[in-house]
Amino acid sequence: MSFEASVLTLYPDMFPGTLGQALAGKALKSGAWSLDITQIRDFATDRHRSVDDTPAGGGAGMVLRPDILARAIDHVSPADDDRPRLLMSPRGKPLTQEMVRNLATGPGAVIVCGRFEGVDERVIGARQLTEVSIGDYVLSGGEVAAQVLLDAIVRLLPGVMGNAVSGQTESFETGLLEHPHYTRPSEWEGRTVPDVLTSGNHAKIEAWRREQAEHLTRERRPDLWQARARKKPPSHG
Amino acid sequence: MSFEASVLTLYPDMFPGTLGQALAGKALKSGAWSLDITQIRDFATDRHRSVDDTPAGGGAGMVLRPDILARAIDHVSPADDDRPRLLMSPRGKPLTQEMVRNLATGPGAVIVCGRFEGVDERVIGARQLTEVSIGDYVLSGGEVAAQVLLDAIVRLLPGVMGNAVSGQTESFETGLLEHPHYTRPSEWEGRTVPDVLTSGNHAKIEAWRREQAEHLTRERRPDLWQARARKKPPSHG
Repeated sequence: MSFEASVLTLYPDMFPGTLGQALAGKALKSGAWSLDITQIRDFATDRHRSVDDTPAGGGAGMVLRPDILARAIDHVSPADDDRPRLLMSPRGKPLTQEMVRNLATGPGAVIVCGRFEGVDERVIGARQLTEVSIGDYVLSGGEVAAQVLLDAIVRLLPGVMGNAVSGQTESFETGLLEHPHYTRPSEWEGRTVPDVLTSGNHAKIEAWRREQAEHLTRERRPDLWQARARKKPPSHG
Repeated sequence: MSFEASVLTLYPDMFPGTLGQALAGKALKSGAWSLDITQIRDFATDRHRSVDDTPAGGGAGMVLRPDILARAIDHVSPADDDRPRLLMSPRGKPLTQEMVRNLATGPGAVIVCGRFEGVDERVIGARQLTEVSIGDYVLSGGEVAAQVLLDAIVRLLPGVMGNAVSGQTESFETGLLEHPHYTRPSEWEGRTVPDVLTSGNHAKIEAWRREQAEHLTRERRPDLWQARARKKPPSHG
């Protein structure tokens, strides 16, 4: 069974977007995952195909109606659907690589992309939507956030990454930012590749990379460094 | 002068992607911002158009060569370009709404999208690339991250958002997550809009929304709540 993604949006033409090419696009064509897109507007009930209305209590922007969105969700994801239902929202749980890994081992995801000022709170409760945030900034809609989430998931699906080791040594998988990379040419604009990397001494190379990764993490992300220290992972180094 | 975005990528067909529609797409057509896309591969120097090579010191994946990437950057962004040069990377500075606001008031941005295992460290230093991370998860490439960054910026550009107030009350602009939203119908599946919102008492509505926003922030994002308390903003409430 491959990973089944269902996306609900007012801009279906934004998909597959970045997910239709490169790694995710190849995985889509190979059947490692599937993507179906639903236009929320198709579930409107009036002749203007309205999906939103003014906020109760006044204020700027428009709010997505609970009844219309619920009809769309129920069509895509009936009560017995075992996939998590997610709402991309800046109020949500911050996305982490751990959440990505958990989602990637599951059956798929139903992803609602918000637009306008927001989504009526009642549908979030009534349809058990889990709000997920990709970061502490505000987007014009959830579509690009959904692509971020799916890109992160898809690369972890079985058979998608050519070199499985690559997934293990990257930033966050070890709790550290990644060490610096170098390649040819060995000298460029007077800058050379560090000697240790051309020494052929694999133990020294490993030690240097680890030291660099630790240094970078301490310097740039003291928050990650401290979170890592608190966790005391059982096997490292 | 409108905001000038230049993107360097190995997947130019991924653009404008989500940025070609809705709010960002309209702003692109209206000239509020411009987007030019450069294929890094066009700056390769061999007949195979190679852009990457194996990592010095061994290991998985491939590394983007410094000479090829520098040629592409120099073409798009000469030494006297006053736009910041950014590299989308999980090792980067975490993107915040404050960074978005700062970028939106500037002349534009040159954005390099990484792929493969990474980018040769020397070009990051030699071309003053600032590494920016959209979150603590790993993507297959920087293209969707660049779209996230540009979407967040574009909505803040002059004339882009229909209702300027909308930008001020959203999550992160006040240091709080946004309060819940409600709209019609007033009763749906036995769930009603909170009475206060239909009271017509604007002071009470404001107080309720603020209380809800504070409650949500404390519950869901103790990190934001504490950061906000430390800042002690001069005027609030």
